[in-house]
Amino acid sequence: MSLFNISDKNQLKSMYNNVVKKYEAYKALNLNLDMTRGKPCTEQLDLASGLFTCLAEDDYKAGGVDCRNYGLVDGLPEAKALFAPIIEVSQEQIIIGGNSSLSMMYDTIARALLKGVPGVNEPWSAKGKIKFLCPSPGYDRHFAICEHFGIEMITIEMTVFGPDMDEVEKLVASDESIKGMWCIPKYSNPDGITYSDETVDRLASMTAKAKDFRIFWDNAYVVHHLTDTPDRLKNILEACEKAGNPDRAFVFASSSKISFSGAGVAMMASSENNINVIKKQILIQSIGPDKLNQLRHVRFFETADNIMVHMQKHAFILKPKFEKVLNILETELADKQIASWTKPNGGYFISLNVLDGCAAAIVAKAAEAGLILTSAGATFPYGKDPRDRNIRIAPTLPPIEELQKAIGLLCICIQVVSLEKILKSN
Amino acid sequence: MSLFNISDKNQLKSMYNNVVKKYEAYKALNLNLDMTRGKPCTEQLDLASGLFTCLAEDDYKAGGVDCRNYGLVDGLPEAKALFAPIIEVSQEQIIIGGNSSLSMMYDTIARALLKGVPGVNEPWSAKGKIKFLCPSPGYDRHFAICEHFGIEMITIEMTVFGPDMDEVEKLVASDESIKGMWCIPKYSNPDGITYSDETVDRLASMTAKAKDFRIFWDNAYVVHHLTDTPDRLKNILEACEKAGNPDRAFVFASSSKISFSGAGVAMMASSENNINVIKKQILIQSIGPDKLNQLRHVRFFETADNIMVHMQKHAFILKPKFEKVLNILETELADKQIASWTKPNGGYFISLNVLDGCAAAIVAKAAEAGLILTSAGATFPYGKDPRDRNIRIAPTLPPIEELQKAIGLLCICIQVVSLEKILKSN
Repeated sequence: MSLFNISDKNQLKSMYNNVVKKYEAYKALNLNLDMTRGKPCTEQLDLASGLFTCLAEDDYKAGGVDCRNYGLVDGLPEAKALFAPIIEVSQEQIIIGGNSSLSMMYDTIARALLKGVPGVNEPWSAKGKIKFLCPSPGYDRHFAICEHFGIEMITIEMTVFGPDMDEVEKLVASDESIKGMWCIPKYSNPDGITYSDETVDRLASMTAKAKDFRIFWDNAYVVHHLTDTPDRLKNILEACEKAGNPDRAFVFASSSKISFSGAGVAMMASSENNINVIKKQILIQSIGPDKLNQLRHVRFFETADNIMVHMQKHAFILKPKFEKVLNILETELADKQIASWTKPNGGYFISLNVLDGCAAAIVAKAAEAGLILTSAGATFPYGKDPRDRNIRIAPTLPPIEELQKAIGLLCICIQVVSLEKILKSN
Repeated sequence: MSLFNISDKNQLKSMYNNVVKKYEAYKALNLNLDMTRGKPCTEQLDLASGLFTCLAEDDYKAGGVDCRNYGLVDGLPEAKALFAPIIEVSQEQIIIGGNSSLSMMYDTIARALLKGVPGVNEPWSAKGKIKFLCPSPGYDRHFAICEHFGIEMITIEMTVFGPDMDEVEKLVASDESIKGMWCIPKYSNPDGITYSDETVDRLASMTAKAKDFRIFWDNAYVVHHLTDTPDRLKNILEACEKAGNPDRAFVFASSSKISFSGAGVAMMASSENNINVIKKQILIQSIGPDKLNQLRHVRFFETADNIMVHMQKHAFILKPKFEKVLNILETELADKQIASWTKPNGGYFISLNVLDGCAAAIVAKAAEAGLILTSAGATFPYGKDPRDRNIRIAPTLPPIEELQKAIGLLCICIQVVSLEKILKSN
């Protein structure tokens, strides 16, 4: 039953003593559990072990190009053919890069700061303070890029349809210093929300005061489904084109959570206009990406359809982990009304909201007992959750028995801290 | 005999008609030769074909780290141990990156522009016009980075000991807007010159007006010898440390011309101070480099000594090519006094100086007959050779019989254009 319906203070105290006892029992186990990051587990990585052997030593040519040598700054055409369908763009709209889509995002912002965005050659850095909209909770590494470059972050609340579009439209239409917006449009980190068609259309068509306002569309979980009825995301580039803002969005993705997180293939896509300018810019930075690793991906996956089949194998490994977490949360917390959580159809996270003001204390409590979670606040700009309530759960890396212990412990920590709060306020 | 000792105009005209006839004969061959870039040839790349097979699918761990997964932003410790001795630094002084040292240079400059250099947190871009010293002839891609970012380039003449240090010292001591200097200190591109100990010491110890003046030390050809008695280069980081300017130099290198040009391993080194700051900065840009490719290099090469042995195999392939070029130049041009060239002990280029004002015409003449050379002027800032005399010869890529044709044709083009100039001035 809801803890808030219990008026008997002694009953609350006895509950509290009970969970503290359980907490001490966990502590005695000397656990050492790390749930900080959304890393794939060994079994997932093993799915792509064919990448080690799929290139014979005489198999280094693609379309006449010796992939061992310099060149092809925008990536191997064969890799474009493989990945373009995954993010629903043409081969003229895509660049295949190195192993990190985060680098492609960082570099795109660094270029905008120093040179301006394609078509508007006014460096962002020459315009004084600039701002980014940051739907939150969101991805800490996006926010870290902004903080690093001194870009002011404006927190936008997430709804079940995506960012609060009324707020977004109002701000973007009125403030010329707003130059960018982060979006994780599918199975968002950490909420697992997929933007609605209306959200995509409003983002594409809204009026922007700054002509160099750009959307950073990090489609990190584009094929990372957990169900047989995956979410569908409207194509932002098509929507922008249709709305008369063809150059508004930069799309990013990678195979980091398809093949290998450390040795995958990253990509970006945009209007042909943007891509043609960016190709020339990145030729200043590099003679070309690692084409052999791109060729490995081409040989191993062969087709976009095979990637979809491969992702079902990932889902087969991940689904029981997500279900385990959700079941424990349900069993331990559902009736108590001290926490709520998302049930995502894909992605890498479960987003947990606890009572206001309790997240940091819960994360600290867990750490004290040997469970390291993503820092409370990490999912918000400047690492500060205004309500101190969001905790990001990353179920992918730990084996299921560890996960069980970890979430069991987390549920106890939530109860301890919540009961302390309730008792104090009574 | 020297063409300048021929006073008989008819004799010169007959020589001219003779070389024009030879040129027309070359043209009739419909050649299609590309000598634009310093790319390794197939036989060189084949030397490292073991990289394709040296990792078994269960061989992905190094020091307990799963190289398939995220992490280790500064590179695999085992890769540091392999490459640090090559550039004569400690493992605390090195970062192992992706496949492109050019990217590491570009990124270092981009960070300096946006954030300042480590220890001096004043963005270069906030200081109005800034300048780089550019020893020339030099590497066109270095100059392209400066031009891209609007950094003014000051050409410094090369001597046989390295850059003209009197000029360098004078400028760096007096102009606070000079923030950087490009150096290819060993087997320089294109001259093949290795800086003398005195040059290194003067660079390390000279007074700089700008406290954030930095040397970009592109040690691209550190182990790329062509003789058994290789040049020795003094250690710039040690010299800087000793001179009381420990943070002055950023050192760059890569295995692009050791293993694969498109799929090698890049590295940068500097003082521990600098490296500690840079590690934190690059963590904003990326979660980590491709550690599997680093592990491949660790498995294939095992030790720095083996890399030295491997480079002898490269030399075995390259030496006959360089000798062929030098022999043809010697035979065709030595007595005529219309060209001079370097005889490098290593590196990837032969630098050819023709009569003033003739380089662009010679390169155009060669192109007309199907031989594409690096653009005249490319080895100078803004692509403008003030004396229009330098031509970069890249002997590594073409098979030796193509090389023979190409250099034969080049020698004819040089004679045609030179004789035209001499006849006109008579």
